[in-house]
Amino acid sequence: MNKLDWVNKRNLSMLADFYEFTMANGFLEYNLEDKIAYFDMFFRSIPEDGGFAIMAGVEQIIEYLKNLKFTDQDIEYFKSRNMFSHKFLEYLRNFKFSCDVWAVPEGTPIFPQEPVVIVRGPLVQAQLVETMILLTINHQSLVATKANRIVRAAKGRPVVEFGSRRAHSYDSAILGARAAYIGGCVGTANTISDRDYGIPALGTMAHSWVQLFPSELDAFRAYARTYPDNCYLLVDTYNTLRDGVPNAIKIFKEEIVPRGFRPKGIRIDSGDIAYLSKEARKLLDEAGFEDCTIMASSGLDEYIIEDLLKQGSQIDSFGVGERLITAKSQPVFSGVYKLTAVEENGKIIPKIKISSNVGKITTPGFKQIYRLFDKDTHKAIGDVVTEHDETIDESKPYEIFHPLFTWKRKTIKNFYAKKLLVQIFDKGNQVYESPDIEEIRKYCKDQLNTLWDEVKRFEKPHEYIVDLSQSIWEVKDRLLKENQ
Amino acid sequence: MNKLDWVNKRNLSMLADFYEFTMANGFLEYNLEDKIAYFDMFFRSIPEDGGFAIMAGVEQIIEYLKNLKFTDQDIEYFKSRNMFSHKFLEYLRNFKFSCDVWAVPEGTPIFPQEPVVIVRGPLVQAQLVETMILLTINHQSLVATKANRIVRAAKGRPVVEFGSRRAHSYDSAILGARAAYIGGCVGTANTISDRDYGIPALGTMAHSWVQLFPSELDAFRAYARTYPDNCYLLVDTYNTLRDGVPNAIKIFKEEIVPRGFRPKGIRIDSGDIAYLSKEARKLLDEAGFEDCTIMASSGLDEYIIEDLLKQGSQIDSFGVGERLITAKSQPVFSGVYKLTAVEENGKIIPKIKISSNVGKITTPGFKQIYRLFDKDTHKAIGDVVTEHDETIDESKPYEIFHPLFTWKRKTIKNFYAKKLLVQIFDKGNQVYESPDIEEIRKYCKDQLNTLWDEVKRFEKPHEYIVDLSQSIWEVKDRLLKENQ
Repeated sequence: MNKLDWVNKRNLSMLADFYEFTMANGFLEYNLEDKIAYFDMFFRSIPEDGGFAIMAGVEQIIEYLKNLKFTDQDIEYFKSRNMFSHKFLEYLRNFKFSCDVWAVPEGTPIFPQEPVVIVRGPLVQAQLVETMILLTINHQSLVATKANRIVRAAKGRPVVEFGSRRAHSYDSAILGARAAYIGGCVGTANTISDRDYGIPALGTMAHSWVQLFPSELDAFRAYARTYPDNCYLLVDTYNTLRDGVPNAIKIFKEEIVPRGFRPKGIRIDSGDIAYLSKEARKLLDEAGFEDCTIMASSGLDEYIIEDLLKQGSQIDSFGVGERLITAKSQPVFSGVYKLTAVEENGKIIPKIKISSNVGKITTPGFKQIYRLFDKDTHKAIGDVVTEHDETIDESKPYEIFHPLFTWKRKTIKNFYAKKLLVQIFDKGNQVYESPDIEEIRKYCKDQLNTLWDEVKRFEKPHEYIVDLSQSIWEVKDRLLKENQ
Repeated sequence: MNKLDWVNKRNLSMLADFYEFTMANGFLEYNLEDKIAYFDMFFRSIPEDGGFAIMAGVEQIIEYLKNLKFTDQDIEYFKSRNMFSHKFLEYLRNFKFSCDVWAVPEGTPIFPQEPVVIVRGPLVQAQLVETMILLTINHQSLVATKANRIVRAAKGRPVVEFGSRRAHSYDSAILGARAAYIGGCVGTANTISDRDYGIPALGTMAHSWVQLFPSELDAFRAYARTYPDNCYLLVDTYNTLRDGVPNAIKIFKEEIVPRGFRPKGIRIDSGDIAYLSKEARKLLDEAGFEDCTIMASSGLDEYIIEDLLKQGSQIDSFGVGERLITAKSQPVFSGVYKLTAVEENGKIIPKIKISSNVGKITTPGFKQIYRLFDKDTHKAIGDVVTEHDETIDESKPYEIFHPLFTWKRKTIKNFYAKKLLVQIFDKGNQVYESPDIEEIRKYCKDQLNTLWDEVKRFEKPHEYIVDLSQSIWEVKDRLLKENQ
């Protein structure tokens, strides 16, 4: 598949909050443009009070950063605003991205308050990329996380992303399908996401197909003859149980079986799915089509799917639309991008942002995340946010403690530690190749297996441990006291 | 401003549900590709139980349809799927859009169950454009409607769209800012929406600006010297009332006034906005800066804004982010695209889709919408969905009636009637030029003035009348009876 560069076919360098440019202009005025600054992207809370989120969007961040530049048209635009200096315009004209960037790989389970992207570099540059980094990771992580909730609710039954028509514009549909695939969906309805990202596109017929033939039977027959080896029929255009399913069975017998194939499935898109699926299952079984699957697709999400399955619905796969692609029940991912340090004479000076809301106080410094795994179960025990160059000695017991309630302590033994942040840009040069989408999806699945079921529960999941190392904690504590 | 064609810089012709193509392939198999079909896009319910929605996205629909084509790469993709006929591949290769399209102009208040887009043309084409038409109108109408709710809550105070970083990907930010502007916002934080769509981009500084200088006072001074004629200061990085506002006042006195300017404003982005704004107002007034405005921007929406104003908050303008750009409280716009008629031997045969849910039964036929206005007040009385070529005689009383509860009747006198649907494509040729964004925004404002306040209420708004003409009603009634 010839992968298109969706982000930069259009140059999105100008997709930045205007204040990034007014600040840049100001920094240049004070010759601060090359002061080295550190920014963390982290998020504050897990959507829907879930136990974890899933990182997604790194590939698009790479595309964006690789192509960051300003055209003559952009410079003209800033000139027309009459508030930018000549120095600023020249700076943009000669702009060359030269930051170091680290990110948590796509598909990794992530938790609040830990840096999932770190940017280190000349102040103006590191500030400028804020909007696009947030926008990209917030969107795709939101959808990957939501998709995985729905996939978990379906308990092994395939879930297909069906939401393009209700997505928040084009990229939301295209990259939303990508994120949903990372989160565990088996495919999408969106053809372009298949062509450009290799997300399997699936789909058969709309109600209009059935309406366009003289009768439902004619419509089914026409479809069966066109796709005898891949015959799925939409059975709810008129009356599902009285006409739809019996007509489908008739056509399966007349058109599919004689050609040496088996019918693939029926789809129910309206009505009471629990009842209809059970009755349809009986009819199909009686007709000898025990292998014919039933797909449901009507306003579904993880809660409805759980309920449907609890009621014994006979559903083999789900098509999930608007509530997945918009993450309807909680459509905002709370990622923020905060200054954490600057360099002065080559020395890192940590910075903090205080807030009366404790959850909004930032963690200062240049960091790394270690995930600790139990050696026997290979389950994740917790994460420790450390200084960037800190090491954790796996051969000795390691004491972790709660960053607020510091008397809550625990000594970890028999563990191994993995760094989560990998470098993706070194002085502006890409040093990381985004894995193939199938690899990302597989990696996500494997990583989710390292989480205890208690963390994956929908209702009041166990809170996964995210602690600070002693060293980072001390810096934060000192700055908190200094800034009172 | 050189307007970029965002939609088609990337060719979005492949942004279509896969079933559009499997159906197209089937239609071609049965030589149905040129059968003339009629589809309506309409929506089913108004977000957040509001009284109306606002149409937006027509300009992007035009861009998409104008450029609809399939490349060799697309054809290769379909070939690789091993389920499409040679005839289908050749059809795509020679694809030329030749439909007639009507749409309600952007900025028009719209209501459930009336066609806001109509497509008439060769079946395969008219079916294929479903996904993009829905996606485009659903997204922009959602955001325009939400923005207008927030603008109404602000009661004349300017509202700026601040949500790019939490938007559902790139177009959602870029075109969301456009839709928000149509809905009444005064600008956006998103620079690219200004460059490409002329939506005024606004912004000053982030907390990081304040953190990057040795002190808040230094940071304010640096900003004031850079932008003395346009000085807005963000006062909540440390302690808003103890430090932020007093520091701002000090800098206004030392750096702005002596240069012959007046300070523009302060911005509060955290804490209790009601309390902080009242106290900040006092401090500013005492210092002689009664003209210095206060902007609030922290997790706002129409409900919070109403509450803040009820409590006497001293806020002059609002920056509204994630809850606007994602329409957080109701992030789905319920537009659907349904077959309403086919032509047989040049005669229009209306089609209906039945459902056990009365609200999901479609209205058959090729239609027009008339909006009836009172001649004295110029207020909108209601809409009547008619046959496409039906006329309403304004010189005579006109009886309207509820399409379900047909005993509810009302005779309208002293009115004039305006057609809402305008033709935008004639046999594939564009015959309508999208107005300038400022015109659309002005038109929206004017049209909203034709709605009674009762329709604009947030809580249980008066239900605006959308009736069917006698003729359309009879067709629907007949088809309902025939299809039982």
